[in-house]
Amino acid sequence: MPRVTIRELAKQLGLSTAAVSKALRDSHEISNATKERVRELAQRLHFVPNAYAGSLRRKQSGNIALVLPEVADSFFSQVINGIESIAEEKGYHVLIYLTHEKLAKEQAILSNLLNGRVDGVLISVSEETTDTSHLQWLADAGIPLVFFDRIGSNIPAAKITTNDRESACLATETLLQKGCRRIALLSVSTELSITRERIAGFREALDTQTVSSGVVLDCGRQAECYTEKIRALLEAHDRPDGIIASVEKLAAPVYTACRECALKIPEEVQLICFSNIGTADFFSPSLSTISQPAFDMGREAARTLFGILDKKIKDPQGIARVLPSAFICRGSTR
Amino acid sequence: MPRVTIRELAKQLGLSTAAVSKALRDSHEISNATKERVRELAQRLHFVPNAYAGSLRRKQSGNIALVLPEVADSFFSQVINGIESIAEEKGYHVLIYLTHEKLAKEQAILSNLLNGRVDGVLISVSEETTDTSHLQWLADAGIPLVFFDRIGSNIPAAKITTNDRESACLATETLLQKGCRRIALLSVSTELSITRERIAGFREALDTQTVSSGVVLDCGRQAECYTEKIRALLEAHDRPDGIIASVEKLAAPVYTACRECALKIPEEVQLICFSNIGTADFFSPSLSTISQPAFDMGREAARTLFGILDKKIKDPQGIARVLPSAFICRGSTR
Repeated sequence: MPRVTIRELAKQLGLSTAAVSKALRDSHEISNATKERVRELAQRLHFVPNAYAGSLRRKQSGNIALVLPEVADSFFSQVINGIESIAEEKGYHVLIYLTHEKLAKEQAILSNLLNGRVDGVLISVSEETTDTSHLQWLADAGIPLVFFDRIGSNIPAAKITTNDRESACLATETLLQKGCRRIALLSVSTELSITRERIAGFREALDTQTVSSGVVLDCGRQAECYTEKIRALLEAHDRPDGIIASVEKLAAPVYTACRECALKIPEEVQLICFSNIGTADFFSPSLSTISQPAFDMGREAARTLFGILDKKIKDPQGIARVLPSAFICRGSTR
Repeated sequence: MPRVTIRELAKQLGLSTAAVSKALRDSHEISNATKERVRELAQRLHFVPNAYAGSLRRKQSGNIALVLPEVADSFFSQVINGIESIAEEKGYHVLIYLTHEKLAKEQAILSNLLNGRVDGVLISVSEETTDTSHLQWLADAGIPLVFFDRIGSNIPAAKITTNDRESACLATETLLQKGCRRIALLSVSTELSITRERIAGFREALDTQTVSSGVVLDCGRQAECYTEKIRALLEAHDRPDGIIASVEKLAAPVYTACRECALKIPEEVQLICFSNIGTADFFSPSLSTISQPAFDMGREAARTLFGILDKKIKDPQGIARVLPSAFICRGSTR
């Protein structure tokens, strides 16, 4: 079916296109009776206003973009809900774009967003994002950008994070207190801001004492290799008796590797995972977690973006909010 | 920073706007030297072409929309990956919109999509979607639509589903064989196409025998009430000894309710859940599942949409592909 135009509506109603256009915009220049006639026909013929023209007039698209690495992670799905709860209040649609942890994909998405499809962008960068010049494109184009969780440290923009360093420090201290003598921190990308912070917190806790030692294992970006790498770690003569998994997707591989090595959790290996997974209670044994304030981080990131759009925030670069995570002790620690 | 226009580029280069426009479109009418000058300045000033004008000219947006109830479900996150694997091959971006199981939100999203932002739409409808007139809007506007999993039965469009009826029948037969005498099927919305099919399969299996009985419990749309409703079911004098959870989000409430009622899985209550959750193996006990071919359903839905866009599929209404699910027996069944 061809799209119905304003010209077509005008023709059928015996009005000028300008009058139809004004009626559709609810202009005071047009009588209520005429507006009613126009709307009735527009509805009957499924007339759809040219959104782009509309958005130029209103200077806004009614959309914000959310650029994420993935959704198969409880953190991101809760962040989405937090963001949408604010966007809904504001009458905005959230367009979700996934980078699948690829820099090239992230660049293509941001380039696609430069065309005015969205009024602002919320982003958590991919594991591969070391070159951040594409993030600067948005700033250069005057499209507000807010980082959450995984930030581009050198880009001047608002940043909403959690206390990764303190949380990793707390997790390490907890394992030390529970008797661990060798602790491994597992990561998936040492380039990420959050990983760097978590490693720093891990080292900080270890440096305060001399009894126990630590090792950082970068499990890389190939999910299918995680179990094998963790098993190799557990088969070494100096295997860890405590593990901190710095991302949720490492939890299942740790359980599998321990099972394959016949090592009992928590008797032989204690485990704490950065995760918001809703089923942690039902794991065997249940999973001790550092739980991030994902929903609140989403709300705060969205509130900040709308604050910039509403011109209530004058200096977005100055915003660096840190929301605290919580340690939840369950069966995978003694 | 104000957006740089073609007019501005033309002025600075001493060219006509038409020449600049043609150079940016790589027209053969413009010399390579001039194209190079135009591109160099366009890049330096961060010129962004008017995408909407571009898309009118190309008659495509380079985007498809994916409209989903939620992402906090392993089925949908795997479907997304399947869809994106095809979209990437085709050089398309996937814009993900979440309805959060609300009809009003689904209507607002589809209305927003009528403006030509996307070339086609993939949708799995919300729990509340009983009125499907908004789905007809897309058809009326000539925007191709492909349903996957949760379909609008009465809308003429391509449909990609799994064998829900047979799978529910198989799950029920399995529980019967394993000695269950009273089986409950838990649902969250009896309006959904998938729920109707699953209930039909459940009844079908029960009807072939006379030893065991069945009950359908609609747990409603309030997730916070699921555990309570399941506990009430388990506390009744004719409590079930077998449960089929028809959606993933009911799994955790069943584990919680059984724990609260001090009923052992699988000794006192056996459980099969429709779910693709990657951690089913680590549950205590591990979770027996009906696993849907989520990734393949995503790929098939996307392939069908691109087939329509490429005009290789002439009769989309005639397409009704059914991909089989699999029963994976784990510890929650005997």
